Amino acid sequence: MSDNISVVFTPSGKRGTFPKGENILKIARELGVDLDSVCGGRGICGRCQIIPSFGQFAKFNIECTEESFTAFNDVEARYKRIKGLKDDRRLGCNCQIMADAVVDVPEESQIHKQVIRKAISDKPLVVNPTTKLYLIDVEEPDMHHPSGDLERVKVALQNQWGITIHHYNIHILTQLQKKLRDGKWQVTAVVRQQEQFFELVDIFAGFCENIYGLAFDVGSTTISCNLVNLRDGVVINSVGAMNPQIRFGEDLMSRVSYSMMNADGAGEMTKAVRETLNNLMEKAREGHDIEADLIVEMVLVGNPVMHHLLLGLSPVELGWAPFALATNGAVNIPATELGFAVNKGCLAYILPCIAGHVGADCAGVVLSESPYNADKLTLLVDVGTNAEIVFGNKDKLLACSSPTGPAFEGAQISCGQRAAPGAIERVRIDSETLEPKFKVIGCETWSNDPEFATENASVGVTGICGSGIIEVIAEMMLASILTNDGFIDGEKAAINPRIIAEGRTFAYILHDGEQQIKVTQNDIRAIQLAKAALYAGCQLLIDKIGRPPEFIGLAGAFGSHIDPKYAMILGMIPDCPLENVQSVGNAAGTGARMALINRTARTEIERVVHQIEKIETAVEPNFQDYFVGAMGIPHATADFPHLQKSITLPPKIKRDAAASGGGERRRRR
Amino acid sequence: MSDNISVVFTPSGKRGTFPKGENILKIARELGVDLDSVCGGRGICGRCQIIPSFGQFAKFNIECTEESFTAFNDVEARYKRIKGLKDDRRLGCNCQIMADAVVDVPEESQIHKQVIRKAISDKPLVVNPTTKLYLIDVEEPDMHHPSGDLERVKVALQNQWGITIHHYNIHILTQLQKKLRDGKWQVTAVVRQQEQFFELVDIFAGFCENIYGLAFDVGSTTISCNLVNLRDGVVINSVGAMNPQIRFGEDLMSRVSYSMMNADGAGEMTKAVRETLNNLMEKAREGHDIEADLIVEMVLVGNPVMHHLLLGLSPVELGWAPFALATNGAVNIPATELGFAVNKGCLAYILPCIAGHVGADCAGVVLSESPYNADKLTLLVDVGTNAEIVFGNKDKLLACSSPTGPAFEGAQISCGQRAAPGAIERVRIDSETLEPKFKVIGCETWSNDPEFATENASVGVTGICGSGIIEVIAEMMLASILTNDGFIDGEKAAINPRIIAEGRTFAYILHDGEQQIKVTQNDIRAIQLAKAALYAGCQLLIDKIGRPPEFIGLAGAFGSHIDPKYAMILGMIPDCPLENVQSVGNAAGTGARMALINRTARTEIERVVHQIEKIETAVEPNFQDYFVGAMGIPHATADFPHLQKSITLPPKIKRDAAASGGGERRRRR
Repeated sequence: MSDNISVVFTPSGKRGTFPKGENILKIARELGVDLDSVCGGRGICGRCQIIPSFGQFAKFNIECTEESFTAFNDVEARYKRIKGLKDDRRLGCNCQIMADAVVDVPEESQIHKQVIRKAISDKPLVVNPTTKLYLIDVEEPDMHHPSGDLERVKVALQNQWGITIHHYNIHILTQLQKKLRDGKWQVTAVVRQQEQFFELVDIFAGFCENIYGLAFDVGSTTISCNLVNLRDGVVINSVGAMNPQIRFGEDLMSRVSYSMMNADGAGEMTKAVRETLNNLMEKAREGHDIEADLIVEMVLVGNPVMHHLLLGLSPVELGWAPFALATNGAVNIPATELGFAVNKGCLAYILPCIAGHVGADCAGVVLSESPYNADKLTLLVDVGTNAEIVFGNKDKLLACSSPTGPAFEGAQISCGQRAAPGAIERVRIDSETLEPKFKVIGCETWSNDPEFATENASVGVTGICGSGIIEVIAEMMLASILTNDGFIDGEKAAINPRIIAEGRTFAYILHDGEQQIKVTQNDIRAIQLAKAALYAGCQLLIDKIGRPPEFIGLAGAFGSHIDPKYAMILGMIPDCPLENVQSVGNAAGTGARMALINRTARTEIERVVHQIEKIETAVEPNFQDYFVGAMGIPHATADFPHLQKSITLPPKIKRDAAASGGGERRRRR
Repeated sequence: MSDNISVVFTPSGKRGTFPKGENILKIARELGVDLDSVCGGRGICGRCQIIPSFGQFAKFNIECTEESFTAFNDVEARYKRIKGLKDDRRLGCNCQIMADAVVDVPEESQIHKQVIRKAISDKPLVVNPTTKLYLIDVEEPDMHHPSGDLERVKVALQNQWGITIHHYNIHILTQLQKKLRDGKWQVTAVVRQQEQFFELVDIFAGFCENIYGLAFDVGSTTISCNLVNLRDGVVINSVGAMNPQIRFGEDLMSRVSYSMMNADGAGEMTKAVRETLNNLMEKAREGHDIEADLIVEMVLVGNPVMHHLLLGLSPVELGWAPFALATNGAVNIPATELGFAVNKGCLAYILPCIAGHVGADCAGVVLSESPYNADKLTLLVDVGTNAEIVFGNKDKLLACSSPTGPAFEGAQISCGQRAAPGAIERVRIDSETLEPKFKVIGCETWSNDPEFATENASVGVTGICGSGIIEVIAEMMLASILTNDGFIDGEKAAINPRIIAEGRTFAYILHDGEQQIKVTQNDIRAIQLAKAALYAGCQLLIDKIGRPPEFIGLAGAFGSHIDPKYAMILGMIPDCPLENVQSVGNAAGTGARMALINRTARTEIERVVHQIEKIETAVEPNFQDYFVGAMGIPHATADFPHLQKSITLPPKIKRDAAASGGGERRRRR
């Protein structure tokens, strides 16, 4: 038969000529068209759906009609009846070309399909998971040619999918005999690909349609978990929990101390976090009818201390110079070793750490925001107990961490609390009357609204969270309640009795209900120290590049809640056009999800992390100066022309912040 | 400096010219001379010992004198003081050449050293283990160039030994930080090489001299364990135990039945054998001051049922056609997965199985005897509940198993017992008087010796073991106590009252002490069935090759104890010059030991097993005929000219063995 029929695939535009009667799935494979299939052409999986495009296609010089294809057949009819199939669709594996044809491959039939992220700013993620499914028919044993069940599975994968298995999970063996016979020698193989290395992870009897993965962001305070369908990258469920290690220490350093002071301190914390992770896995599955055995992939991110405790490693070395990591490479570890009751072939992938204080969570942020592909100089800030800072673009990328301490998380603040219902998160102060209004998490109305008392009744006003403390201090500055050097001005008590004396200093009462919520001079000092550390870290990286950022991304829970304007008023972050400062959401978690659904993301972040230039703030001579200079509000050493364009700031005054004790704090690490 | 000094190494004869002052270890490496080193030239390990050869060497055109080498230095003196060093020896790493020199590398300094096997017939084994030690100095962490401890270990192995680590055992991480610091950044890396793939198995703080491996032969009845030093292949300790699965069934088929009849029958047997294996590991270490953590390699062999139960696999499929193995490939499994409390990086290697009834034990026999390298047609017979038979030479190798049943192991024999103290193992019958004499295991004197009663007192006479039953029946034939068709001749009672009537048949009383030990007609039938099966299996393979064996090796405990002459008189094995029939000892265990100490042995046996042609006796049409024909003693279908040359046989008579029921037995499997 001569190859005289032209076939064009859209949207790829790939084309070729083929003999009449050739199968569309086969043609697609020959041309390298991105057309999915799990069942290998048996009409079972429905992944190879295509849309015949009828009409005159001048640019291809093709007229495509009903006659271009074989008629809808029984296999397709059965699939449509059982699983459903849109009217314009065909199964590529059961449809042959009979004349010149144009064939469209819809998004969901593509192997490298994309999944849309929820937030508007988010780029879509490409789906190309490490682990995929392959339906195979395995030869039955034959005593004339004795060979093992496993070996015949390997032969089937080789012959039917061209996959050479280099390694198999040893736990497969125990169920192999039963599964092959239960499936009547038809099984779905779960195959993991790492570079050009193929591992047989498991097999399921008969046809298995979906496998799943988990992406964990292990924060010091909260842990989030996404259950993801590896077929299409869609998040099935998102759940979260408090990090149970909090009972051993609120911030990272106290957990490191706990493991120094207690013989098996690290072990206890490891056990605690692993239990919570496994519980989250169970919680994520609830109501979704997904067997734990179907969970075959897992990705985790966390800062270096979380990373070490998760892996059962002592974090003690991270507590002092030279802040040595046990490993900075990406870690592949069987999920069962981390205590997960999932598929025994499930591999947990933990992103690489960048440095002793810049962890796998920061690598997740970098992967998510990919500044290494950007032209624009991008500053990424992930604020936790340590701020992890990345700056640069495709030419060069720098990273450091800065010891902000837990003030931004509401710790070390007299009325501080974690971001939870009842916490004040938004504040405005009238610059005439010095009267505040605020909003609390869990209640949509402002506190000066007549409805507030009613609507707030169920949550109350319990404290100030990180973003609230930023706003109230910035507003106190804008209303001149703060003096130039960051002191609460006692003379302002004459205007509003909310300014009260507390010993030799003053405080500002934000709310006087069941609980009195106030801002003390110590609170302001704590925030000054934290924001100075953050700013100094950013400035250090800006110095190394020699140019200011063109985009600032604020990552993490704190970064999501903070109003960029107030961050800038306070002098937390360097000056930048306000419209170019954005929250990038839980970028660490997004990075974990990317590494979960796309195997090339893993090699990408490993390569990038290796190339990042690591800056150790503790030994940078300028850090001290920047730190001291950034203590004021806003501070002495930097101009904020973009900020001043956007909002009206009180007259900027030179301040001497030398007395603020930043040097001592710096050595705290 | 010009390269003008000639250096010749013996025994390799490798030579080259080098600059004056060059280090001998370095020269050896450059020339590819087989000179060992663990410490990489630090003068710690003493593995690179060489012997300067002084004198005129006409064939090399070299005069080698004291001046050819630098003087004995402090490092060598220290090593000699602490560890001892023969007077003629130097440390290659601390000795430089100063003039033309001849350098001898003694056997123990060679990397691929040989280890002598105990038995005289045994070929020496080459030592080239999968896992070796490498002393490294690891860079200390530097916060200006942050990198993980693990990554710096990898860099050290790369820079100091040229080894690229592809994989590391995840359990290393937990102890890594401590070990590096305990060793003051000098550690010994344990590295496993499989093909060109290097795995970091563990690290030990400081210099570690020895690591160990275990070779297990998991028989249905007994389990043997060799503890081996991987440095030189020397067996440190050999221990053994009964297979605890005996309580679930004496022979293989009854264990398969047990797992069919009981929900977790296979699981119970798996647990039992794993416990015994771990106990043997402990027992082997006793008194040898070897930490379990130093055991980093393990090799196991066993028949297919033992293989499956060991791995936690159901053996049920092995109980019926088509006798499908779960896997026939070599299995690598972490030893901890088999329940061993050894180094967590210890990998257990299980030799490949040949077919559903020809197991990893037989692969061990093949590896040990290497008929695939032989010119002579070699017949290897390993007798257990199934006889595993291999026949061929370097051109072609065939294998089959034959259902001998447990009679050769003393089971199904009225007074049968396992080979243990008290069991009759040697028998002679006077052909005139029909009086027997015998020897029992555990007593050196014959039963007709006046000392026998005294010397035997402690062990007694408790039964007949496999080799004893062979001899007594063969001697009964030689003494014409047996009729031509294998019946005990009642008329012989007239000559000796040891021939007694038992119902319609007769028995022969071998011993009448505390216990009466006799041979019944049923015993003779059981042995006839077993030996006919064995003979028929051999004959089938001989047919396929078309020529008789030139060497017969009898493997296993039974093969070690049996007198080849009697095996031939009985017609168990084909005819062959008696001097070419030998016991090859526990060849399966030797094969395990070879795979333990030499990694190329593993690839070799995997290749060979793949090439062996598997014959399934159950479906071979000639098997039935051979079986029936081989029922007589000696039997009807074969001549034994070699045997007849060696001993005087009674007149050979055609017998009709057709009524013997062999067909029924054949289908027993």
